[in-house]
Amino acid sequence: MRPIYLDNNATTRVDAEVFQGMLPFFIDQFGNASSMHDIGAAAGKAIKTARRKLQALIGAKFDHEITFTSGGTESDNAAILSGLEVNPERTEIVTSPVEHPAVRTLCAHLEKTRCVKVHRIPVDHYGRLDFDAYRAALTHRVAIVSIMWANNETGTIFPVAKLAEMAKEVGALFHTDAVQAVGKLPIDLKSTAIDMLSLSGHKLHGPKGVGALYIRRGVPFHALIKGGRQERDRRAGTENTPGIVGLGKAAELALQYMDKENKRVKSLRDRLEKGLLERIPKSFVTGDPLARLPNTTNVAFDRVDGEAIQFLLNRHGIACSSGSACTSGSLVRSHVLRAMNIPHTAALGAVRFSFSRYNLEEEVDRVLEVTPEIVKKLRDSFPISAG
Amino acid sequence: MRPIYLDNNATTRVDAEVFQGMLPFFIDQFGNASSMHDIGAAAGKAIKTARRKLQALIGAKFDHEITFTSGGTESDNAAILSGLEVNPERTEIVTSPVEHPAVRTLCAHLEKTRCVKVHRIPVDHYGRLDFDAYRAALTHRVAIVSIMWANNETGTIFPVAKLAEMAKEVGALFHTDAVQAVGKLPIDLKSTAIDMLSLSGHKLHGPKGVGALYIRRGVPFHALIKGGRQERDRRAGTENTPGIVGLGKAAELALQYMDKENKRVKSLRDRLEKGLLERIPKSFVTGDPLARLPNTTNVAFDRVDGEAIQFLLNRHGIACSSGSACTSGSLVRSHVLRAMNIPHTAALGAVRFSFSRYNLEEEVDRVLEVTPEIVKKLRDSFPISAG
Ligand SMILES: Cc1ncc(COP(=O)(O)O)c(C=O)c1O
Ligand SMILES: Cc1ncc(COP(=O)(O)O)c(C=O)c1O
Repeated sequence: MRPIYLDNNATTRVDAEVFQGMLPFFIDQFGNASSMHDIGAAAGKAIKTARRKLQALIGAKFDHEITFTSGGTESDNAAILSGLEVNPERTEIVTSPVEHPAVRTLCAHLEKTRCVKVHRIPVDHYGRLDFDAYRAALTHRVAIVSIMWANNETGTIFPVAKLAEMAKEVGALFHTDAVQAVGKLPIDLKSTAIDMLSLSGHKLHGPKGVGALYIRRGVPFHALIKGGRQERDRRAGTENTPGIVGLGKAAELALQYMDKENKRVKSLRDRLEKGLLERIPKSFVTGDPLARLPNTTNVAFDRVDGEAIQFLLNRHGIACSSGSACTSGSLVRSHVLRAMNIPHTAALGAVRFSFSRYNLEEEVDRVLEVTPEIVKKLRDSFPISAG
Repeated sequence: MRPIYLDNNATTRVDAEVFQGMLPFFIDQFGNASSMHDIGAAAGKAIKTARRKLQALIGAKFDHEITFTSGGTESDNAAILSGLEVNPERTEIVTSPVEHPAVRTLCAHLEKTRCVKVHRIPVDHYGRLDFDAYRAALTHRVAIVSIMWANNETGTIFPVAKLAEMAKEVGALFHTDAVQAVGKLPIDLKSTAIDMLSLSGHKLHGPKGVGALYIRRGVPFHALIKGGRQERDRRAGTENTPGIVGLGKAAELALQYMDKENKRVKSLRDRLEKGLLERIPKSFVTGDPLARLPNTTNVAFDRVDGEAIQFLLNRHGIACSSGSACTSGSLVRSHVLRAMNIPHTAALGAVRFSFSRYNLEEEVDRVLEVTPEIVKKLRDSFPISAG
């Protein structure tokens, strides 16, 4: 049986068209985009086209607002470190406790090693940001706010446009990690006050090892990776032409499929969610019921280990995730659920199913067939007291 | 006519076998190496194999001494910044004036923005390091030495094994930018005192957007890019599986071809060099005649602009470079030649021809056919006084 891949928030399959688009740039058009000869120029042109496509997907006003990077993590690091550097008289960061490790780990590091104060605005049981606390943290001491557009584990969407407006009032930069939002939600940056936005190719059927950082025109920026003068001095290093071309194509396709496919994906997600809740007692969906990514569901089950469910689903050829894949096989409990005051312990397991446009209705039905049994078996074999 | 590519120090064509090796990891085996299910595990396994292949090429003692990065520039930045961070009581860097911008720009930035003293050890007319000055700069105040293994513009090879021994005597870390050396010279790191080494996939017929940093076991290291726990906490971000697999395959091939092909490449290079000097008056080869990469020649021509030669060669379908491709189309004069006290001005043009195992004898003959005419025409049409 073909494996069922429901872990698209961890990574996605490269789209066949994206793949085709990349192929010429490995062997035929392999030039260095910075070279002055024709072989280099061809690469430079391809990068320009890709930049325009990404510009269209995120609604940037200018193509040069997009800087290509090696991925979401690098973009996040670059944005936050730059935000501090360009505002040396400000020493505070405002963020949330449910950010991806790319933001969280960096902020914790800055707090520990530099004189940086980090405000982590609490979220409620649904993962929604506490607006009062956010407002209170926003002062003229804040260099940069970094709050994600959508959470990778629960799919909860944050009202970043509004949050950015509020940050602007105190002169703080506003960065958003939109790695999970880009390609899944319509985005029109030019109509917002967002200063910087991170995205990653492999989350939208583009290749791994490439991402981008949007930097609004006029926002001062210091490069994280220094060296050659690529990307208008914002990111040194020989351009990853095939990767960039692939990301451009992925952006084009995401825009093209945005309405139709996202609706279909949402209906699959809803079908799975409803089916699981109906079939499995003591289960519930985490995240904001009113503002959630169309492709993500994070289902919690009382008295059963999420890792164990995932493990047994894998044996049935079903790939999903418990917690975040980015913590490299470790058994650390989800910081996201903890922040939502959902005790993600052995007494409560959570499993994330994340869809893409490649998923099919019969895949959902298969998951609905096997998951209830798995949960039942686990609950019976390893009774865990609810304490 | 097929274009003649003699700009392999800027970037190389991806080897067909490397390309084939990468292909499965875009669509079929697209998993996230950090995921706990089978689709992720397949990627993890492929990365492990790639790491072993790279280990073999550079003679590292342990495979975990290799950390995959997004390229040479990131590796250089990560090494130097870590070197300073792990030795906070030491505040000096020793480097050379002929380093790639990935090292040079970073060092200049550190000098300007932090209390870091940068010693730039002079080189002589052949690009050879001044050993006395090097010895004098080495004190217990030096956190890290960063000196390249081989220069990208002239091919000059530095005696890094010896330099590393000397750095060790004062307890300084030794980093080498070996982006141009790896794949071109035999390297056996375990028999040296080198602590860190940077390399880049696209310089050895591997893909762009991937590189590695060797970090000797036991050498303390702080990650530049922070986030998820990939690469044993040394480089966060979803692993670029196809890129890493490609780099692994490129390493395997480089090792396989090392002896035979490098000899052939050297003979092509020597043939070109000899032919140009014979045919073009007032021309000479720059760099160390006794220690030079087998694939590189940098030829200087009196009273003619290097950019103009390159431009006209390009019209004949010959790709080469004047100066470094990494300075993004800018007309800045070579800092390498300047450091060698070779006045790289309009009155003296330099052109770099850099070979790979794909080059053929007839390509050399074609360059020998057209270059003398081009130089003559330029000298006749735009007479430049030698002043
Ligand atoms: C919300 C979020 N931010 C950042 C990242 C990091 O992106 P990348 O792994 O491409 O560096 C991820 C995924 O891994 C993510 O889900
Ligand atoms: C000596 C040297 N170091 C570093 C680099 C940077 O490598 P990358 O462009 O892959 O980041 C290059 C080439 O561009 C180089 O020639």
